[in-house]
Parts: sequence; C-alpha cells; structure tokens
Amino acid sequence: MSLNIFQYFQPKDKKFFPLFERASSNLVQTSKVLVELVNTSSPEKKRELYKEIERLEHVGDSITHETFHELSANFITPFDREDIHALVSSVDDVVDYIHGSVKRMELYKVDQMTPPIIKLAELIQKSSEELHTAVVELKNLKNISKIKEATVRINSIENHADDVFDTAIANLFETEKNAVEVIKMKDVLSALETATDKCEDAANVIGSILVKHS
Amino acid sequence: MSLNIFQYFQPKDKKFFPLFERASSNLVQTSKVLVELVNTSSPEKKRELYKEIERLEHVGDSITHETFHELSANFITPFDREDIHALVSSVDDVVDYIHGSVKRMELYKVDQMTPPIIKLAELIQKSSEELHTAVVELKNLKNISKIKEATVRINSIENHADDVFDTAIANLFETEKNAVEVIKMKDVLSALETATDKCEDAANVIGSILVKHS
Amino acid sequence: MSLNIFQYFQPKDKKFFPLFERASSNLVQTSKVLVELVNTSSPEKKRELYKEIERLEHVGDSITHETFHELSANFITPFDREDIHALVSSVDDVVDYIHGSVKRMELYKVDQMTPPIIKLAELIQKSSEELHTAVVELKNLKNISKIKEATVRINSIENHADDVFDTAIANLFETEKNAVEVIKMKDVLSALETATDKCEDAANVIGSILVKHS
Repeated sequence: MSLNIFQYFQPKDKKFFPLFERASSNLVQTSKVLVELVNTSSPEKKRELYKEIERLEHVGDSITHETFHELSANFITPFDREDIHALVSSVDDVVDYIHGSVKRMELYKVDQMTPPIIKLAELIQKSSEELHTAVVELKNLKNISKIKEATVRINSIENHADDVFDTAIANLFETEKNAVEVIKMKDVLSALETATDKCEDAANVIGSILVKHS
Repeated sequence: MSLNIFQYFQPKDKKFFPLFERASSNLVQTSKVLVELVNTSSPEKKRELYKEIERLEHVGDSITHETFHELSANFITPFDREDIHALVSSVDDVVDYIHGSVKRMELYKVDQMTPPIIKLAELIQKSSEELHTAVVELKNLKNISKIKEATVRINSIENHADDVFDTAIANLFETEKNAVEVIKMKDVLSALETATDKCEDAANVIGSILVKHS
Repeated sequence: MSLNIFQYFQPKDKKFFPLFERASSNLVQTSKVLVELVNTSSPEKKRELYKEIERLEHVGDSITHETFHELSANFITPFDREDIHALVSSVDDVVDYIHGSVKRMELYKVDQMTPPIIKLAELIQKSSEELHTAVVELKNLKNISKIKEATVRINSIENHADDVFDTAIANLFETEKNAVEVIKMKDVLSALETATDKCEDAANVIGSILVKHS
C-alpha cells in the first residue's frame, strides 16, 4: 500500500478547495440562469437574465484570478500546480462560453430559441452539476467512485451534445436558405457545444488528479 | 562531452516508446484511409471508409488515455512529462482533425472531392509518415539527422498545405455564389489544413526533445 | 522581507532578456506597419506594407525559436520555464494574428478599410507598445508599478477591442446582405480582435511573473 501523502496536506489546505468549490458552484448557478434564459419568452426577462450571466462571468473571473494568485504565492499546493491551473481554467472556460453564447444571441438578435439551443443549455446544466459534485468530493477523496461516476457522465453528456450540435448544423444547412442566419445560429450553437467540451476538459483534469492521488 | 542520461533510462523504458509508436502508426493508418476516401467515387465505399476512420479515432483516444495514465502512474519517464503529454496530444489531434474533416463531409453532404481536398489529404498522409519515421527513431536517438530531416519536411509540408488552403478559400469566395456552400467547404478545408498544423506541433515537440537529449 | 532570489540571477542573464525585448520590439514594429497599411489608399503601398509584415512575422518566428532553444539548452532561467515559454509564445501569437489579418485582406480582396478595422489596428498598436514597456521593465523589476499599470491598460484595451468587434459584427449582420462578404469581413475582424486577446495573454503571464518575483 502506497503512502497517501494527501491525507497530511489536505487538512491544512484552507485556500484551494474553497476556491474550487466557489468556481464550480458559480458555474452551476450560471448554467441554471442559461436554462431559464433559453426557456423564457419575455424579452425583458431575457435581458435581465443576460445581465445576470454577465455578472456571474465576472464573479468567475475573480475566483480564477484569486486561484492563480494563490498558486503563485504558495509553495505547497494540494495537487500539482499545472492540474490546479488547468482545472480552474477549464471551469472558467465553461462560464465564458455560456456567457459568449448568450452574448451572441443578444448581439445577433437571435430570438428564436430552437430545440437544439434548449437541449444544449440543459446538457450544459447537467454537466455543470456533475462537475460540481466531483469537485466537492475532491477535497477528501473518500468517495472516489462517486467522482469517477460523475466524470464518466460528463464525458457521455459531451458526446450527446456533439450529436445534438452536428444534427442541428446539418438541419440548418438544409433548411435555412439565408446564409447570414446560418452564420449567426452556427456561432450560437458552437459556443454552447464548446461549453460542454470545456466541462469534459475539467473532468479529464480531475481524472488525472485521481490517478496521482489514489 | 556531456553525459547522456538517456542511454541508461532508455533500455528500461518498455512503456512509453511502444505507446508513441502505436500512436503514430495509428495516425499513418488513418491518413491512408483518408486519402482512399477522398479518391473514391462510390458512396458505399466512402461510407465504409468513414466508419473505419471513426474506429481509428477511438483507437487513437485509447492510446492517448493509456499514455496519460502511464504519465500519472510513473515517476521516471524517458523525456520531460510535458513533452510526452504534448507529443501524444498533438498526434491525437491530427487524427481528431482527420476524423472531424470526414465527419463534416458526411454530415454536410459534401460529395464533390475537389482538387484542394485531395491535395490536402495527400499532404496529411505524407506528413503523418514523416512523423512516424521521427517517432520510431526517438527510441534510440542514434540517427538524429534522420529525425531532424523528417521534422524539416513536416514543416515544409505544413507551409505547402497553408498555400493550398489559402488559394482554395480565395477561389471559393470568387466562384461559389451560394454562401451556405462556401461555409460548408470552408469548414471541411479548414479541418484538413489544421491537421497539418497539428503534425507540425508534434514535430516541434520532437525538435525540443532533441535539443534536450543530444 | 523575503529574499529576492531574482537580484542574484538577473545580472547573469544575458540570454533571455535581450530575446524578450527583441520579441516585443518586433511586435511594436509589426503593429506600426499594420496601422500604416489600414490607413493607406494606394494598392502598391498596401502590397509593400503587407510584404513587410510578412518579413517581420518571419523575424518573430526566429526570435521564438531561438528562445525555445535557449530554454531547452539552459538549466537556469530568470523565470519559470513555463512562464518564459508562455510569454514568448503569446508575443509571437500577436504577430501571427496581425499577419493573419492582413493576409486575409490580401487574399480575400478586402479593399475597404472600414472604421472598425482601423480602430482595431490602432488598439493593437497601443497594446503592443504597452506590452513592450512592461517587457523592458521586467529585466530589473525596479519599477513594478510601471509594469502593473501597463498590464492594466492592456486589459482595458482588450475590453475595448471586444466591444468594437461585437458592434462591428452586429452591424455587418444588419447591413451586409451578401453573406460571402460577411464571412470575409468577419474573418478579418476576428483575426484583429484575437491579436488583442493574445496581448492580454502576454500581460497575464507578466502578471504571474510579478507575483512570484516581487
């Protein structure tokens, strides 16, 4: 049985785990607002939810910068520095792509929330919740199988999102004859799909942390 | 004369070099199927070759995951961990972009295999073969000049692919008046061109390994 | 007061700081030629300036390769190796995106230099000059506040460029009915906007170096 160096460091870390949890919890919140936004028909409500996602994106940025600052300022970290950097960056990326997708809807005046947009938003929310579950469990690593199951589900959600995106683009090419509308919708769908890719990136970092620490 | 630490580690490494070779050999195989696919006129044959590329992409993923697992689980590695990570990731990226390009052809119903598509596929195959040559030689580093020559050729293939892509896009803008067709074709050509960029990324990692170990 | 390990290493480093300065100075030069190019109405002059940007892009590549070579060949470096790698790569990326934007103008025959193109070019020049100021100060770290102020300005320039880009794309979608022209212009504007993103990446690396060394 190998020595688990983790159990000695972990209780002392009061800096990084709370930051990880704030980051993933902020992501869950952002994804919920996204689902609400794509399901509302009121332009005023939509505008308000867009502003809320903008605010949450700034919150996410602060958490990321705070984590990078702690990384630079601390000699001892609970995981490899590059893993911490990659984990927090990818969680931040998910929030950025959610924000990017709604910014495009707003800017390009994409008012029609099509079934693939709604489906992708729901998949992003599911994936964000799984990610938060995995992140919360990271701090004690007592329930490894729970973390692993969450990362497996994130991977299968990403595959599902890929299929939704591919089918949506193929349909768009066949049915939408206005090419400018094709470009707009493709940009929006692409940002949503990339959000699930970034969730998978975060899950892969967690997978790599697990291999090293268990 | 500097001590070559490599000669002591190398004979013991039974894990990483076979993985590198499996990865680059799988890439060569994928690129051959691509060239076959863009040169076939039978839709059934095309469909079959597409399925084969899909299968090879999964094989590539497994090799990448296996390598990452070995990286996490082993303290001693034949090269710097970040170089191994970057090398295997970029080889995997080439396969992913080949797969991405044929997936788009399939999905967008791009049936006409234009001269630039065929040319880019051939350049990807050439570049993949050069990469495999360099990777095979990495394990003993006896024939450094052979590795260097391969990486130089990969760089010049990438420049050639850039020119083919640029000219193809400029022609497309001038001749194709249906903008939706422009978008489809640009997406396909762009994925093919990016595959040669990723080959160059892999060659650059090999260049950096050479500087450290020779 | 913590020991500043930097003051001991720094006077000995004759390799890296000159390379950083050559890189950022080459970027400033490239950005000036860009501003000149987007403000000229003579096709001959434009062509000549395009060739000059092509030349400067090659100069940038050489500086980057030289830095990577020094990184591989030297055991002691003034900053963390990954920070040096990231700094030089992002400066190189800015030059690459400037080159990429003018290459697209040339190739796609985008002759009309619209106000957002001119504005983005000016923002790139400003950001490049701020970056050069920060890079020059890095070598003695005596004037930390000067570096910090430059990085703050680079961040706000990037936000400004984002707004210019977003508004330009929204206008394009509303006014340009020829979708092929939309695609061309969007590609050009996108390359310009990404150049300011890469400046911000470089500024973030400098920020992270500051935290570690001050």
